[in-house]
Amino acid sequence: MVAYKTAAFAVAGALLGLSRAQTFQRLGGCPTDLGCVFPPDEADFLAGQYFDIRLEVHAPVNGSEAISRSPDEHFTFTIKKKDSDDEPVPAAKYFQLDEPQLERWNFTWTEDLFARDMGRPSLVNVTAKAYRKVALYEAGEYEATLTYYDGQQTVANWIVRDLDEERKTKNILLFIGDGMTTNMITAARLIAHKSVNGKYKSLMQMDKFPVLGHQMTHSMDSFITDSANSATTLYSGHKTTVNCLGVYADSSKNPFDDPKIETIAEIFHRVYGGHIGIVSTAFIADATPAGLTAHTRDRDQYGAVVDSFLNGITNYTWTNWTGPDVLFGGGAEQFYNSSKGGRTYMDKDYYLEFQNKGYQLAQDADSLSSLSNDERALGIFSVSNMAKWLDRNVYTNNLRNQSNSPDGNKADAVNQPGLKQMTLKAIDILNTRAGDNGWFIMSEAASIDKQMHLLDYDRALGELLELDDTIRASIEHLKELGTLKETLILVTADHGHGFDVAGSVDTKYLSAQNNTRSKRQAVGTYQNSGLSQYANTGNLTYTDGVHFPSNWDPRYTLFDGFMANPDRRENYKVHQTGPRTPSRNLTGPNNYFVNPSDNPDGLVVNGTLPVENSQGVHSLTDVPVFAMGPCQELFGGVYSSTDVFFGMADCLGLSRYSSDDSGYRRDK
Amino acid sequence: MVAYKTAAFAVAGALLGLSRAQTFQRLGGCPTDLGCVFPPDEADFLAGQYFDIRLEVHAPVNGSEAISRSPDEHFTFTIKKKDSDDEPVPAAKYFQLDEPQLERWNFTWTEDLFARDMGRPSLVNVTAKAYRKVALYEAGEYEATLTYYDGQQTVANWIVRDLDEERKTKNILLFIGDGMTTNMITAARLIAHKSVNGKYKSLMQMDKFPVLGHQMTHSMDSFITDSANSATTLYSGHKTTVNCLGVYADSSKNPFDDPKIETIAEIFHRVYGGHIGIVSTAFIADATPAGLTAHTRDRDQYGAVVDSFLNGITNYTWTNWTGPDVLFGGGAEQFYNSSKGGRTYMDKDYYLEFQNKGYQLAQDADSLSSLSNDERALGIFSVSNMAKWLDRNVYTNNLRNQSNSPDGNKADAVNQPGLKQMTLKAIDILNTRAGDNGWFIMSEAASIDKQMHLLDYDRALGELLELDDTIRASIEHLKELGTLKETLILVTADHGHGFDVAGSVDTKYLSAQNNTRSKRQAVGTYQNSGLSQYANTGNLTYTDGVHFPSNWDPRYTLFDGFMANPDRRENYKVHQTGPRTPSRNLTGPNNYFVNPSDNPDGLVVNGTLPVENSQGVHSLTDVPVFAMGPCQELFGGVYSSTDVFFGMADCLGLSRYSSDDSGYRRDK
Repeated sequence: MVAYKTAAFAVAGALLGLSRAQTFQRLGGCPTDLGCVFPPDEADFLAGQYFDIRLEVHAPVNGSEAISRSPDEHFTFTIKKKDSDDEPVPAAKYFQLDEPQLERWNFTWTEDLFARDMGRPSLVNVTAKAYRKVALYEAGEYEATLTYYDGQQTVANWIVRDLDEERKTKNILLFIGDGMTTNMITAARLIAHKSVNGKYKSLMQMDKFPVLGHQMTHSMDSFITDSANSATTLYSGHKTTVNCLGVYADSSKNPFDDPKIETIAEIFHRVYGGHIGIVSTAFIADATPAGLTAHTRDRDQYGAVVDSFLNGITNYTWTNWTGPDVLFGGGAEQFYNSSKGGRTYMDKDYYLEFQNKGYQLAQDADSLSSLSNDERALGIFSVSNMAKWLDRNVYTNNLRNQSNSPDGNKADAVNQPGLKQMTLKAIDILNTRAGDNGWFIMSEAASIDKQMHLLDYDRALGELLELDDTIRASIEHLKELGTLKETLILVTADHGHGFDVAGSVDTKYLSAQNNTRSKRQAVGTYQNSGLSQYANTGNLTYTDGVHFPSNWDPRYTLFDGFMANPDRRENYKVHQTGPRTPSRNLTGPNNYFVNPSDNPDGLVVNGTLPVENSQGVHSLTDVPVFAMGPCQELFGGVYSSTDVFFGMADCLGLSRYSSDDSGYRRDK
Repeated sequence: MVAYKTAAFAVAGALLGLSRAQTFQRLGGCPTDLGCVFPPDEADFLAGQYFDIRLEVHAPVNGSEAISRSPDEHFTFTIKKKDSDDEPVPAAKYFQLDEPQLERWNFTWTEDLFARDMGRPSLVNVTAKAYRKVALYEAGEYEATLTYYDGQQTVANWIVRDLDEERKTKNILLFIGDGMTTNMITAARLIAHKSVNGKYKSLMQMDKFPVLGHQMTHSMDSFITDSANSATTLYSGHKTTVNCLGVYADSSKNPFDDPKIETIAEIFHRVYGGHIGIVSTAFIADATPAGLTAHTRDRDQYGAVVDSFLNGITNYTWTNWTGPDVLFGGGAEQFYNSSKGGRTYMDKDYYLEFQNKGYQLAQDADSLSSLSNDERALGIFSVSNMAKWLDRNVYTNNLRNQSNSPDGNKADAVNQPGLKQMTLKAIDILNTRAGDNGWFIMSEAASIDKQMHLLDYDRALGELLELDDTIRASIEHLKELGTLKETLILVTADHGHGFDVAGSVDTKYLSAQNNTRSKRQAVGTYQNSGLSQYANTGNLTYTDGVHFPSNWDPRYTLFDGFMANPDRRENYKVHQTGPRTPSRNLTGPNNYFVNPSDNPDGLVVNGTLPVENSQGVHSLTDVPVFAMGPCQELFGGVYSSTDVFFGMADCLGLSRYSSDDSGYRRDK
């Protein structure tokens, strides 16, 4: 089935690749061949989904792959539907495009850590072409063949999924708990829900979803993903590489010329005039919200990301996009311009840009609640990431002295809404405006991930519980609005962190000991872990309503942690004065040690991550998918993260088998 | 709904309990009251399921709960069905038993770590009674009330589940991956299955199951379980305490007088004459196999456990039990007697005991395959735990010099079967012998857990892959036998370990560095994790058949680990010379440091577990349940581990609403 490498030349590359294509790679998705096709072999497409094609031919100048020639200028590229008798057709003809111009560039990469230490980069000369805004309209298998270097071939086998065009849901409400794993949900349940003799008296809202699945989050060319790559997959059905938003990464220097893939927001908007809402507790240009409309291989292009929310893609021909109905989150520094210290695209004032296109503006919880449900709305509530649930609700002093007001005037953003308020308002606006066209809302609990990165387990679990409360309140609200049964609700994550809980800690005992080995004796495992003191003390109720811990600072806390860390010191207590900073750069750049002021009564644990890491990192584990509503049955069992997109697209009926977007399958 | 504490006296205890009932507890399931009822408040029952009742009244002599009186000798205990107009009935009358004798004992416990360090135990005097072999035959809610100390009450609310009596499956095949988490399945898939550009070309057998659930594994009185307690829950529907097999733990010194709960093996055997098979790669007296027939609060009573496999419970009146059809595993030292160094119940030769009751005996892979399918069989293949897949199949030299032959003659057990061979033979025997009565087989991959405890990630993942291969082969075999569609197949775990993978390690680079911080630079995260070198090199196929890594010792390995550890040194390479010993007792008892001979080229990481831990420990995370076959729909979503039992019992139609076992619901 997989004609991946054929000629002797490529096999030589493959053999070299066995030991090297690991820590560093020449180009993801093109690990051994010198000819590269994006979308690559094994890509799946929705019928009618727009995408760009990027072709590259590499001529390594030095290093283990060096060849003594220039990159091929005369490569060819053909498309063939596999079950047809047609001959392979040149791509320009197949897609009825002019043959694109040949492009040239070069790039360097490092083959392994020894080469890095010796300062020996490998240079590669490149010829390339791009076919922009194409689509495949027939279900089935395709063979896309790049021919170069006198008969050398790189074949990409593509599949267009054979999905029903019928629309089965009016709306989709997609919750993403960034970095959220089953392990974290288990810990959050433990601290917020009371149990009696092993029986929970209330459950997480997620626990009550009728269908459970697991999705595999790995990247195309590495087994650990970041949030940009995984957002791209969830929204487009294509696995790509770390840091990519809505594109495959090519090897050119330009971060905006990479081959794009149309996202569910863009397709839904194009096909049905569907209305889109984007909500996040992160700065809104962050990867998970950005992935719905941005197309760049560099997720750090925040200014361009914000522009793409409003204006879509403007540098190449691309699918039409006219902005979301709702954009709520943090990240004011990408909206006010340099006059206030912001960094925006072309130094524009994006508050103004949005308002000029008819958006209402909210900048705190009160103005959010005052927004009309009839007009589009931008809500930016803080500089950078929004405040955490624990600080907004328990340790409120931490909202002071942040100089993070969204107007850029250095006041404190003390009146920030939470995910629940933002999401309920988004539902109100979308439900009012979308009419029969329906809506798609993505609501992200971003700081589960951000606080897990900081090893601030309490804040991370607070964010997770806020997400669960948001889900609960959203279901109630959709029921009130009479639209629950026509809304598919999904709750999932984009990747994991290697977090778990292995017992309890007697923090009073730990603090009273004077050496590391004695402090470890404060840990209780198995029967000595006892019961949760977060939930089983105080006035925690048994009701189905809001559930958070009744006590965040009990004597007996969770013995929690990661499987990989920077150096850190643990006392297992809540960080009452604000989000944790576990490690600091004490001796020079990129050399992190325990932060001397973090948990001074704790026990030092040396890390295992590379010393340039100040934070924890993402992990491999499959993450859960909870589904309820129309098409819920599509989301049970274990599957690729790409299938979350295809399940949503199937449920919305987004496949189009004709280029006239009429929704009818083209005759074969 | 929960009348848990009522009188002022108990409230005082409750307040004291807030800060203490954590690391240590007076008695699990009775954390604050001085009157204790087992089964406790919130227990669920199958209609007709046998159980014992234990009542205790405590009189603390010293410590924070001290009272100045003797334990009540005149306590009373009543049962009342909640929806009836009946008055509460004394238990002896309700169950038509003679009033049991009053028992007396005392015990000590330690209130917290400070009390432990100061050597200050708390003494408790006890009065107690036990009602043996009772059952409830009407669905609904019951109130069981212990009255003591002049009106003090402890109320246990019990629920008898209202399940259908109709039988929906002929057979159940229950696979338990001991300690297996979603994170481990993800890692096993990565090392054994090939992917191309992010798409796996083959999947785990578990991945293909149609229904996925999560079960919560926590213990009754602590949030971390061991395998005894969790086995009890999976087999009986009752959460109990760590180290308990088929009982609730009372406070008496006798480990065999604790209140019992009838297990699914016992009920299925009693109600339908169902045939039972027990297969494990552990020593067969270990908790997970033992839980099907043993009833003791001390899982280490191995001799008694082996006797209970054959003879059931003999010290009290209890449900009839005549032995399993198949008992396959390790643990010969609990079969041959002291003349060969074994330790058996009453020093009997249990090979002989089993053979005297008609069992065939197998002691290696060849004799296993030669067993007749018509007769019952005992197969014991090694002293202690059986050899690991990695040693049986890759590093076979490690089978030498083990002195572990099951006959006790100190030869090496070099011809041990694997889980697959044992399970397929068990299916053959059970399917031949059970006829219309049907069968229940429990097949345990025990050393996922055992090797995770040792931080031997490779061996643990090898065991997990062997489990998956066993599941695949079992499905194929059941299909061949024509019995697949009448067999419910479940795959689950009993608890987790805090394991995950966060990237790759360039082991060549790590080994070449000369200090810990430099060695950490060998770790590649995110895009630098690259692809699995275990699966993407060599001759690994794309087929649906057997899948194990093609290379266990690549240069680029997994960056894996736990969230809680003893001291250890990591080089992230396979342990070619046998299972790992990460830490050793260097300076005296219960004080573990890095094993000097483990991974001498690795980087030292100090642990966070109490220093008496030589191994890793269990973790909190919910574990997956994969289901296919009749009733598969009962196992989707998130639920208590107790519901695995109730789902299986429901599917087998084990509820009985009359004490005559006729299967008809008693008129109300």
